[in-house]
Amino acid sequence: MSETDKTPLPNKYENFNEWYNEILQKAELIDLRYGVKGFIVYRPNAAVIMRQVYRLFEEELDRLGHAPCIFPVVIPFEFFEKEAQHIKGFLDEVFWVTKAGQHELNKPLLLRPTSETAMYPLYAFWIRSYKDLPLKLYQSNSVYRYETKATKPLLRGREFFWIEAHCAHRTKENAERQVLEDMEVMSNALHEVLGVPFLLLERPPWDRFAGAERTYAFDVVFPDKSVLQIATTHILGENFSRAFEIMYKDEDGELKYVQQTCFGIGISRILATLISVHGDEYGLVLPFDIAPTQIVIVPILFKEAGGIVMEKCKAIFEKLCEKGYRVMLDDSDERPGAKFYRWETLGVPVRIEIGPRDVEKGVVTVFRRDTRERIVVRENELEEKIKELRKDILRVLRERGEKWLEANLRDVKSKDDLIMLAREGGIGRMAFCGREECASEIKAETGGFEVRGVRVGEKWEKLSVCAACGKEAKELVYVAKPY
Amino acid sequence: MSETDKTPLPNKYENFNEWYNEILQKAELIDLRYGVKGFIVYRPNAAVIMRQVYRLFEEELDRLGHAPCIFPVVIPFEFFEKEAQHIKGFLDEVFWVTKAGQHELNKPLLLRPTSETAMYPLYAFWIRSYKDLPLKLYQSNSVYRYETKATKPLLRGREFFWIEAHCAHRTKENAERQVLEDMEVMSNALHEVLGVPFLLLERPPWDRFAGAERTYAFDVVFPDKSVLQIATTHILGENFSRAFEIMYKDEDGELKYVQQTCFGIGISRILATLISVHGDEYGLVLPFDIAPTQIVIVPILFKEAGGIVMEKCKAIFEKLCEKGYRVMLDDSDERPGAKFYRWETLGVPVRIEIGPRDVEKGVVTVFRRDTRERIVVRENELEEKIKELRKDILRVLRERGEKWLEANLRDVKSKDDLIMLAREGGIGRMAFCGREECASEIKAETGGFEVRGVRVGEKWEKLSVCAACGKEAKELVYVAKPY
Repeated sequence: MSETDKTPLPNKYENFNEWYNEILQKAELIDLRYGVKGFIVYRPNAAVIMRQVYRLFEEELDRLGHAPCIFPVVIPFEFFEKEAQHIKGFLDEVFWVTKAGQHELNKPLLLRPTSETAMYPLYAFWIRSYKDLPLKLYQSNSVYRYETKATKPLLRGREFFWIEAHCAHRTKENAERQVLEDMEVMSNALHEVLGVPFLLLERPPWDRFAGAERTYAFDVVFPDKSVLQIATTHILGENFSRAFEIMYKDEDGELKYVQQTCFGIGISRILATLISVHGDEYGLVLPFDIAPTQIVIVPILFKEAGGIVMEKCKAIFEKLCEKGYRVMLDDSDERPGAKFYRWETLGVPVRIEIGPRDVEKGVVTVFRRDTRERIVVRENELEEKIKELRKDILRVLRERGEKWLEANLRDVKSKDDLIMLAREGGIGRMAFCGREECASEIKAETGGFEVRGVRVGEKWEKLSVCAACGKEAKELVYVAKPY
Repeated sequence: MSETDKTPLPNKYENFNEWYNEILQKAELIDLRYGVKGFIVYRPNAAVIMRQVYRLFEEELDRLGHAPCIFPVVIPFEFFEKEAQHIKGFLDEVFWVTKAGQHELNKPLLLRPTSETAMYPLYAFWIRSYKDLPLKLYQSNSVYRYETKATKPLLRGREFFWIEAHCAHRTKENAERQVLEDMEVMSNALHEVLGVPFLLLERPPWDRFAGAERTYAFDVVFPDKSVLQIATTHILGENFSRAFEIMYKDEDGELKYVQQTCFGIGISRILATLISVHGDEYGLVLPFDIAPTQIVIVPILFKEAGGIVMEKCKAIFEKLCEKGYRVMLDDSDERPGAKFYRWETLGVPVRIEIGPRDVEKGVVTVFRRDTRERIVVRENELEEKIKELRKDILRVLRERGEKWLEANLRDVKSKDDLIMLAREGGIGRMAFCGREECASEIKAETGGFEVRGVRVGEKWEKLSVCAACGKEAKELVYVAKPY
């Protein structure tokens, strides 16, 4: 981060691409100079946020009875080819390992694009009886897909980081409950920790995960009004358990196929979301609970009073550490202005500034990154204030996001409305006939708007006709331009 | 884990191979049925221990000013080929990605066998001035090496998990200090947390890391008297900084090459070490600080007194959780014997058993896994007892390991002694001429004993002649049979 270049970033709503590329550099998040298309380098500022996001979800999965495991990055082709739909969906996207040392491999291996076909052959060994169910395992790993669409850092790459959770259940009902649990994990994290509003949609049949019976997805709305899918959970039914012969002996002695689900949480995409949905022209804005550094303390030193200011800073630092906050005391030699600038760029939610006058008066100055307000707080009320800020920062970020989502949600009644939506951007909600051809026509005529699916839990009045084709309407769907 | 098969494991000192293969299955640590040679599946019981080991070292590295980062798993060949020694050392061992989808890649990519050549091209971008130094970055990741030697689960595979830390320093002195710091990180973790004794050796020139000026390695002694290298730290000097043109402008305005070091901590090998060095015929024995579950509470229920026993168990469970211990309350329906068996197999360091009589008397029964002793402890002294056990378990495990190391360390004075060592197994210490040909002869004549290097910090009296060849001796070295 150059010390001299302090010009603010562009407005992200007006010029998202430029803003996004600049913030990735300015906050030293990633580096695009790796020299292999679609592969990026995550610098420490990105890696520490991703670590936080990983832990958030890992703790939640652990709490819900999942357990971590690690499968190889390579998948033998004979595993991969077992489920017909799955191989059809992924074959054009896989990277192949064909050589080792100077030798051609007898059987080429593929880099996992997702791990169903790696994991399920072992599930067939591990599951014997109904007592072995449910089996709930997850991996925190990276997967590889040879994307032919334009790549965009963190949004669409050829290597991405995620958590994949794979469950085997005894009954259809348990599998359904699993998917509801997955939705809740994701909804809670987005609502209670990340402060990001979302659309939870059941994808139309042609947009399901390869091998799934039903696919539910979390879409978030970006500042350019495009949507990004950040997580999905799928009912796999018996598609994979039949292909991989994952059976259990039930209480009644009968051999039955397990009912499967899988759940993917896009960690690099959540990083992109945190950057884009919350960031502003001064840099990152991180929600309090996920921020690697939650509070930074900056001493405002004058020669004479240096000693007592540093003493006070250290005392407050230690007190806050003890309370379990992630705190940094910036006692470097830079001028306070440079420090303020850096910590704002990095999105640290709360900054505490302490100068000689503050010490005298028994107060500290608190700066909150989300609203960029400064507040003077009595030292003995600081902890209370931080507790309050923790909640209030989340509220502010969430409400901003919700406003953006609402402001860009349009009811689409006709083809003209669709054309208007395509021109202005936004999310459309419309009565839809349910036909894939109609969705394809919408996509072609709007330059890329897709039918993203039915919102989970949304009820609708009797619908008349499809807003796009005029045929009988079957459902209320959302249309949007995806990344 | 089958409930019926409660036969103890073989004695690990008498039949290590059998013991090792059995414990991997019995404690459900890994699965070897993945179908690709050298690639294994880490089941939850292994994954949670590895997570603990990862965190132990990550926290320590963070504390010492390293920062995490993530580089791609693939390395372009033009990066890889830049350092001549390095490419020579690894070319026969790399996996090649040559195809994506249906296309041949223009330039094949290699799966990282280690990340010097992935990271250092970026270091050349990031480092401009002496103010950018030191740069201390680490990755927690997996690497890929096409091992042609026999693979052995966790000890030698084609995919292994580690931390690799890469530092760029301003001066040779700082690089030297870095390597000392790395040694301390590893020594402290082994001594203070993992309870594993080790030999810290400077490897002879022919056994250095490809591209290093000096290589220091941590060898641990296994129950079969073979040694396993679990970590290394290297002085790279300017070998890579010249190849990758990593230069900085010094305070005097001159452009200089950075001084580099790298440090690898083998996480899957540390898992193998914890299993092998501490385990016994009842299963795993985990040191208290690294154990995913430190304390398990088992209620001994009788119909009439079930309520008060469970109440007591829950109260103690909550109290210990509050104190920050990782505690499990096993309130499943199994019989206590089956529970004891399972938790012993998994190596949980402390078990607390509570029955109706205990509640009456205000005591609990504490079982320690390391010595398999049962102690009755007054409830109000439980916390004190656990603090004491935490230290004492570590002491016992460490002393056991030290005894094993000492008992198998032999002073080698002659060729006959070497032949004897090869027959009986163990670690030899001998005066050595320093010549690679002599080391090769030792290896050939002993069926695989290698000169592992000089012990760091060890002083010796004037040496006369090399125990193997009779030429003038230059140093005191350790010889052992490595995995």
